[in-house]
Formats: sequence, structure tokens, C-alpha cells
Amino acid sequence: MNTKSITTPITKLCGIRYPILQGGMIWVSGSRLTAAVSNAGGLGVLGSGSMRPDALREEIQKTRSLTSNPFGVNIPISFKYTEEHIKTVCEQRIPVVITSAGSPKKYTETLHNAGCKVFHVVPTAMLARKCEDAGVNAVIAEGTEAGGHNGYEEITTMVLIPSVRDAVKIPVIAAGGIMDGRTMAAAFALGADAVQIGTRFAASEESDAHPSYKQAIIDAKEGDSLLLLKKLGPTRMIRTPFALKIKDKEDAGAGKEELVALLGEHKAREGASLGNIQEGILEAGQVISRINKIQSAGDIVAEIMNEFAIVCGKMHNI
Amino acid sequence: MNTKSITTPITKLCGIRYPILQGGMIWVSGSRLTAAVSNAGGLGVLGSGSMRPDALREEIQKTRSLTSNPFGVNIPISFKYTEEHIKTVCEQRIPVVITSAGSPKKYTETLHNAGCKVFHVVPTAMLARKCEDAGVNAVIAEGTEAGGHNGYEEITTMVLIPSVRDAVKIPVIAAGGIMDGRTMAAAFALGADAVQIGTRFAASEESDAHPSYKQAIIDAKEGDSLLLLKKLGPTRMIRTPFALKIKDKEDAGAGKEELVALLGEHKAREGASLGNIQEGILEAGQVISRINKIQSAGDIVAEIMNEFAIVCGKMHNI
Repeated sequence: MNTKSITTPITKLCGIRYPILQGGMIWVSGSRLTAAVSNAGGLGVLGSGSMRPDALREEIQKTRSLTSNPFGVNIPISFKYTEEHIKTVCEQRIPVVITSAGSPKKYTETLHNAGCKVFHVVPTAMLARKCEDAGVNAVIAEGTEAGGHNGYEEITTMVLIPSVRDAVKIPVIAAGGIMDGRTMAAAFALGADAVQIGTRFAASEESDAHPSYKQAIIDAKEGDSLLLLKKLGPTRMIRTPFALKIKDKEDAGAGKEELVALLGEHKAREGASLGNIQEGILEAGQVISRINKIQSAGDIVAEIMNEFAIVCGKMHNI
Repeated sequence: MNTKSITTPITKLCGIRYPILQGGMIWVSGSRLTAAVSNAGGLGVLGSGSMRPDALREEIQKTRSLTSNPFGVNIPISFKYTEEHIKTVCEQRIPVVITSAGSPKKYTETLHNAGCKVFHVVPTAMLARKCEDAGVNAVIAEGTEAGGHNGYEEITTMVLIPSVRDAVKIPVIAAGGIMDGRTMAAAFALGADAVQIGTRFAASEESDAHPSYKQAIIDAKEGDSLLLLKKLGPTRMIRTPFALKIKDKEDAGAGKEELVALLGEHKAREGASLGNIQEGILEAGQVISRINKIQSAGDIVAEIMNEFAIVCGKMHNI
């Protein structure tokens, strides 16, 4: 393997050296992290789901001042500023736009007309097929071990990736449980053309996550990742005091209204951005138990690619 | 890769040609399936958790009449016939005994003294470490996508295997979501020395599963696998009418007593052995959505090994 660059359908689509996308996480993925990942040869992605329209424009400009490499923007389809964000990325001709949490039909044509590639996040092979029909360029198949918003079907990466691979002809990016060269190699064995990594980059030096949030990722042990809010929209988070409040309510049979009342507003901002690890929500994947240090995004990418090459070499010698 | 046989620490421990173990499933893994898998070069495993002491002895004799290759016996540690079963496998000098659902300390020494190798099933790296301390020969690390009884921590195979690999020096067998050459290759990329496959063999010709149970596996679609009974002991099963009754109770906050009352007795036997797919429990893994035909166990093993060799070859050329 040439470790200076790898060619897959995704590296070609994105114009990047390594088939690694950084997850566009709310309150976490700003211009510093995005530029650092793109400078390291992966695809950095701004998380616009926590940005006002002017903030997104500003972050795009900042990213451009920090890197001349391609980067992407993640836009949740049901966000209150979705329309404005779509306009912004079209005007700015962002090379890759990642849409999620809504129908892939809604904006794909608009984005294509502006010259943007469109990747859509899917938790099932059924939605992957709909994405292909809608003309999406690639799907990001995200297993239930991933942090943040998650599919109702709770399909794990090990089952999801081969299912999606068999369901569509467009490229597949694997997400959920991926954090190093071994898990990246596993994703490729399952049929992926690239990986998306979220939580490990959330704990990187360049991430906008509050230091207490990063430390909570580092400190987390096996079993400290909980999939909650299944009646509202399954969300994977760290076992904080507030997460346990949600769990207690759910175990007691709480319905949607009661959960909405408990949640209130801005819990993700409170946790991720303001660092209130008692009362905020800290979205993160199951890999929190495997992450034990804060590194630069560049070191993370380099370390993953080195291990990936070693593991792929070993596979040949079995 | 030599596809006639592969050498890993597990093939050496078991004296088998291929690093594939068949899950010892209650009501499903009898002498026919066990012998068929062992004859195909894997390790067939009797599921003693649904057998009376005389039935286990009979099944061991039958298996021996059908194969001269090594095979194993799975013994749940908290079963009412555990003591008798342990005596039987010691007397019969079964080469590999797989213990689960209890402390690895309890029987390992007894089994070792009788010349049996001991593999213990674990849902966490923490328990894997305890197994190593207890002198177990290998651990079967089973992700939450696996069928039947499951860990409370709900750790997926993608996260669990590298965690366990890093936690212990003894060999690691991956289970949960494994059903073909791609998933087997992924397990090896994650650090496994072998795989355990349950659900696909449950749907094989030689399995003792009722034909209606096999058909339910074939018919199942994405999302038809549910992890239920989390307050009693998490169990993954097919979305049958009875499974939905459990789910409704749980969503309404039912406690242990209410769930025990709903369950009554013999639900697994009713589903798996008697084929009552309305009122029985059909334990099965998430891979049900990927299984679409009933094959002989020998064809399954051969197909997996062929695909495994192809995938490992491709990994080298990335």
C-alpha cells in the first residue's frame, strides 16, 4: 500500500488523499478542526447544525483561510436554518455537502446544480436505496454505535455496511465504531470505500468541544455509552448525570411529552460547548471506551493510515 | 491464502482446519448440525442448554457416530443441569467446552483437569480480563448484534473485538454480526483469531430449528431484530407477535415481575423447537436481514471460506 495516498471512489469524488471523512458534529466541528483534517489529507467537514447563517458563512471563510484543500459541510435537513445553509453552500460552491435527518430528494438537485457533490447519512439499506434513486453521489452508512442521532432500527456497523454495499452501486462510507486502522480495515473488508470518524476527532486538539467534554470522552469506560430518547429520536450520548435522568424516565415508561419536558432546550450546547457535564448532553459514540488521549487531528489521521496499512498487509498473510 | 486450511491460534487449540465455530444454540444445535460443521472443517458445537443429562450424552454419542473430527459443547453456567453436564463433558473428554452466562472461575479448573479446553463467552473487555485470570484458553467476544442472550452494555462487535484484543493475550473469537467471508475478514481485521457463527447455521439444513423458525429467519427484513428483556437479561429475537407484546410492556415501563409473568415458561422451546412463531420466542441475530436461503452447513462453511480468501486478497491491493 502507498501510504502517501490511496485511491477509492470516495477519494476521487472528494479530491482527497485518504478515504477518511471527519464527522460534521454540532458545536464541535468548526473551521479549526475542518481545516486540520483537510490539511492532513482527509475531508474535514463543518457541522452547520449548530450555526446561524452568518456563523456558517464566517466558518467557511475561516476554513478557506486555513486550508486550500477540499472540505465539506454537514446540513441536517430539518434544521431551522436549513434553507439559508443550502443557499450558502451553493453560493460558496462547497465541494461536498453531507445531508442528514430528512429526505434525500429535497435538496440533492439544487446542490448538484450548484456543483456540489451530495452524500446522505443512512441508518438502513432501505434508505440507501432511496438515496441512490434520488441521485445522491454516495451514502454514509452509520451503525448504531455512532454518537449523536441514530436510526430507530439500531443496526450495527457490522451488519449495516454489507447490507448497504449489496443494496446500492454508489460508493459507501462507513460510520459508527470507526476510530483507528483496525476498524477502518474492517470497514473496507465489509465493502466500504471510505470511513467517517466523529468521536475521536471530537476529542482532538482542534475540536471546538469544551475541554470538559473532551475529558469526558477520555475518561469514559466500557458501558458508558447510552442510546437514549428512542421514542423521540434515538441519540447516543455519554452516561452523564443528565443522561441517567433520561434513562430513569424511559425505564419507567415515560412518553414523548414527558421526555420533551425533561429535555428542555439547548442541552447539546450546554454539554458540548459550555462544558456542563452534569446537566448537558454529551453526544458521543461507543468508541469513547477506546479513546484515551487528546491528539492533533493530523496525528490522528497519520496514525490511522499507518495502522490501516499494517492491518491490510497482515490480511494478505492469513 | 491456502483455502484448504488456515492456521490461527484457535485452529491449533481446537485441531480444526478453518477458524469457524458454530454457535451452540439451545433447541437448534444438535448432533446433525454439530457433526456437519465439524465434517466441513469448522468446530461444531452442541447446545446443551436445552438438554437433559441423558439427552446430552445421547447427542454426544450421535455426533461421534457422524464425525471423527473434534467438536465442542456449550454449557450455560446457570442452567439447572450444569453440574451433570460438566461431569458428562469431563467423562467424555470433549475437546472444547464453551461456558457462558456465569463466572469463568467456576468450572475452568475441573474442565482443564479432564483435558478439555475452555472458551468463555464475554460481552465486555472487563470480563475477558477475568477469563484470562481464571485460566480460560480463549474468549468468545460477542457483540450486541448477536442472537439470544446478550450483554447489558450493548457493545457492538466493531467496538468490542479491538477492546478485547487489547485487553487479553489469549486468543479471541469474534461473534455477533458474522455470517459470511466479508464479516469474517472484518473480524480478523479487528484482531480476532476465529469467528463464531450462530444464526446462519440455525437456518441450515442440519439445524434442529423448526422449519417455521428457519423460514422466519429467511423472511426477516431490516429492523426485524429486537433486543428485549433488558431488565431481566437482554435477549435478541425476531420481531414476532409475542416479541411485540414484550416491547409494548417495556415501552410502558414494565418491571421485572410483570415481564416474568408475561414470559411464563418454555417460550424459547415453543418458538425454536415447536415452531409457534406467534407466541414463541425466536432468538436470532441482526444478520437475519442478510440471510435469504437455507443451505447445508458444509456449503455455508465452503462459501464463507471462499469469500474470506477473496476479501483478504483484495485488502492487500488497496
